[in-house]
Amino acid sequence: MIDDIFAASSAAFIQYKNIPASTKADFLEKIAEILEANRPTIVPLAVEESNLPEGRINGELGRTTGQVKLFASMVRDGSWLEATIDPGDSHREPLPKADIRRMLIPVGPVVVFGASNFPLAFSTAGGDTISALAAGCPVIYKGHPAHPKTSKLVAECINQAVVESKLPDGVFIHVEGGIEVGQALVKHPAAKAVAFTGSFAGGKALYDLAANRDEPIPVYAEMGSVNPVFTFPEKLENELVPLAQSYVSSLTLGAGQFCTNPGLIFVPKAFEIPFEAAVADAIKDLAGSPMLHPGIAKAYYESISYYQTRNELKWIKVAGPQHEIHGSPAIASISAADWLSDDAFQQEVFGAFALMVVYDSPNELMEVAKKLHGQLTITLWGDIAELKLHAALINLLEEKCGRLLFHGVPTGVEVGYAMQHGGPYPSTTDSRTTSVGSGAIKRFARPIAFQDMPQELLPDALKNENPLKIVRQVNGKFTVEKIK
Amino acid sequence: MIDDIFAASSAAFIQYKNIPASTKADFLEKIAEILEANRPTIVPLAVEESNLPEGRINGELGRTTGQVKLFASMVRDGSWLEATIDPGDSHREPLPKADIRRMLIPVGPVVVFGASNFPLAFSTAGGDTISALAAGCPVIYKGHPAHPKTSKLVAECINQAVVESKLPDGVFIHVEGGIEVGQALVKHPAAKAVAFTGSFAGGKALYDLAANRDEPIPVYAEMGSVNPVFTFPEKLENELVPLAQSYVSSLTLGAGQFCTNPGLIFVPKAFEIPFEAAVADAIKDLAGSPMLHPGIAKAYYESISYYQTRNELKWIKVAGPQHEIHGSPAIASISAADWLSDDAFQQEVFGAFALMVVYDSPNELMEVAKKLHGQLTITLWGDIAELKLHAALINLLEEKCGRLLFHGVPTGVEVGYAMQHGGPYPSTTDSRTTSVGSGAIKRFARPIAFQDMPQELLPDALKNENPLKIVRQVNGKFTVEKIK
Repeated sequence: MIDDIFAASSAAFIQYKNIPASTKADFLEKIAEILEANRPTIVPLAVEESNLPEGRINGELGRTTGQVKLFASMVRDGSWLEATIDPGDSHREPLPKADIRRMLIPVGPVVVFGASNFPLAFSTAGGDTISALAAGCPVIYKGHPAHPKTSKLVAECINQAVVESKLPDGVFIHVEGGIEVGQALVKHPAAKAVAFTGSFAGGKALYDLAANRDEPIPVYAEMGSVNPVFTFPEKLENELVPLAQSYVSSLTLGAGQFCTNPGLIFVPKAFEIPFEAAVADAIKDLAGSPMLHPGIAKAYYESISYYQTRNELKWIKVAGPQHEIHGSPAIASISAADWLSDDAFQQEVFGAFALMVVYDSPNELMEVAKKLHGQLTITLWGDIAELKLHAALINLLEEKCGRLLFHGVPTGVEVGYAMQHGGPYPSTTDSRTTSVGSGAIKRFARPIAFQDMPQELLPDALKNENPLKIVRQVNGKFTVEKIK
Repeated sequence: MIDDIFAASSAAFIQYKNIPASTKADFLEKIAEILEANRPTIVPLAVEESNLPEGRINGELGRTTGQVKLFASMVRDGSWLEATIDPGDSHREPLPKADIRRMLIPVGPVVVFGASNFPLAFSTAGGDTISALAAGCPVIYKGHPAHPKTSKLVAECINQAVVESKLPDGVFIHVEGGIEVGQALVKHPAAKAVAFTGSFAGGKALYDLAANRDEPIPVYAEMGSVNPVFTFPEKLENELVPLAQSYVSSLTLGAGQFCTNPGLIFVPKAFEIPFEAAVADAIKDLAGSPMLHPGIAKAYYESISYYQTRNELKWIKVAGPQHEIHGSPAIASISAADWLSDDAFQQEVFGAFALMVVYDSPNELMEVAKKLHGQLTITLWGDIAELKLHAALINLLEEKCGRLLFHGVPTGVEVGYAMQHGGPYPSTTDSRTTSVGSGAIKRFARPIAFQDMPQELLPDALKNENPLKIVRQVNGKFTVEKIK
């Protein structure tokens, strides 16, 4: 069965990789259109299966189709191909110079694992699937067991677009099954890359499987992080209450079930009492909200129970009694010295739990920066003048994250050209890449150079005439000009 | 000792990554200048240690300093940083849009292993070292035991440039030692990437070590390949003798000790006899030339001995008697059916040995293309009209290589913007990257996004004013314009 899947996928690849960019863009836009047309069925199903509110799911569908359209426009534009041309020179001495032209080509069949926490935007027709399809790779999508019906319905939408676009049916294959099925997909020799969003344990297991294949393949696993927020005195002096409120609302958004959930905040000793009070005030009336499924709620309360055994913690708000599905927000404080003493305090808790770490001095923050694990995001809440005094700290923190924020909160990831959603290990398995935004397409491509290839055989992206009118690098300079 | 090395390297990194691009470019140019000034000492030493002819080593030093200057110019230009800006919009509904700016930053200390076959261009001051330094990473260079004196002398040149440029001395560290030292370098937690050029066994061992660290890191191992040449009837009809000569001279260049050495050639049955005759004629008077060191010569003759046990082969030219240091060229023919029956015929022989594979039909070539391992290069010698008939074959072969040639020979790799020197596994461990040409710098960088960062704190590459005057992607469009 797995062999049949890859046979279909590989056969589709050899055709799909060569279809014109405009056909591929039309296909992606058709997916968006069909998803939009099925909104009335998709949304209630995803709400039912994820326990997420209808407003959020409606928004998430918009985000999903927005992503599809972004990738469609990139495919049409063609600049993502990194077309690069070093024209030949038959008169060069001592040897003639060959004509070399390079561009990105798709890698082959991609295995995608969806996320539980985004049943649409990071699932069946989510960023991983769509960026792989945009790159020219067929996708084998392993449905997430937390939302099987939603996954199947969205898969039907994609397959309808495949049929209407007259593409080979192996372009997108939806697979259901457990862990063994996922492992078999990653281990299959025809798989050329893997994308995953989920837990560290899950992502690392897939990475290990892929690295130990006869032919190792890249695994793009986005495994989340605790997304620390660093606060500084001047800023707190002026905006303490709104910052505390903003922090609590980012922490508890969506029951804390975001990869960018800020589960760690560093507060200067001088502001310990007032910041605690403001946080306590902001969080006190927040009821638990439903988590994605009972397993996730159970894991959340298990983590809380573990932290309750740690005497280093002082509770600002304790979680309510364990509930089958509702996750009750909780926050505890700890001294920076204690936090530094045990890596266990860096573990991600999936849900609305945070550690507030009280620091004594800028030196202590430098120690924190050195010890901090790799993160998707780090947020700095400081006035410009005081941040300038912390240049050495910021310099170190750059080494620990994929996105550094100076305002606002890490939740709510913009989809655009400049977004970086990825970061040093263990937040992801490949910090060179992003899983959100236009850069995500590059994960599923590799360069090939054509040397002295006749014009008639060259791909359009590299022809002298530049028929696609794309930006290319010619002799090192970016240009849309033809080659003479 | 290894800890001290990485302590120095990590300390240097935190400074070196932030020095202005112009200082970094000056530093690289100084390296080129000092190497050039030491040419009279470097060349004879490298000749003595590698057995390569003086003309070749003189040329290789020119290539080495040429590479240094290319990377210096890229660092000055700054476009490699992929500066990307999505300006914010405080009026966007329903939520204001954050300002997001992304660029590449260096990854940290890089461990580089030099190649035996290029004592200069792929060694101490070779492409890996220089592209890592250009990216802003300090380098820990493990000297190759085949040319210890050359390595030490070149390291002194680099260190002289470090001192004259007033950079921290951990920017470049030269390490001598055996396999255990190399392994310890790769396993050290402070190492962030590894570059290697050499054998499959060596590269794969480093890949496995790196993938199984607590924090896995990328390994860019260029492990060579057999670089097949496919010949087609019309082309042979017109140019048989010059093609055979050109093939033999590429095969035997530098005693066949190139990663792009064409160790495999596919010839249509109808041309078997005349092509064999032309090859035999071109190769018959070629004496063995000295190989890099006795161990390499020994391994070469062991491979030849193995092939002599295989009855499927018919010898066009046998190797001369085993010699302590000279590698005598050899070539044998085999039917495509036999070649297809055993993967052993795809093994690289490091030296001037080739298999000429005789094919019966285009269908048989399709089978070859399906079975072929990943290669650095594939060369197609056909007329345009006949190549057009083989579109399906070319389509498959694209999946098997990093560079596809339509003229000339794979040896002699141009250093430029469009070069791709890398390819699908097992030719390298990371087909998404190149180890020759400007693209090599990207191996040692990763993206970071700054969100709502004040202008005064932003790196120059991302400031509104564009003080570096670099090409940036703003709202998805390439431009050198300022942001208003």
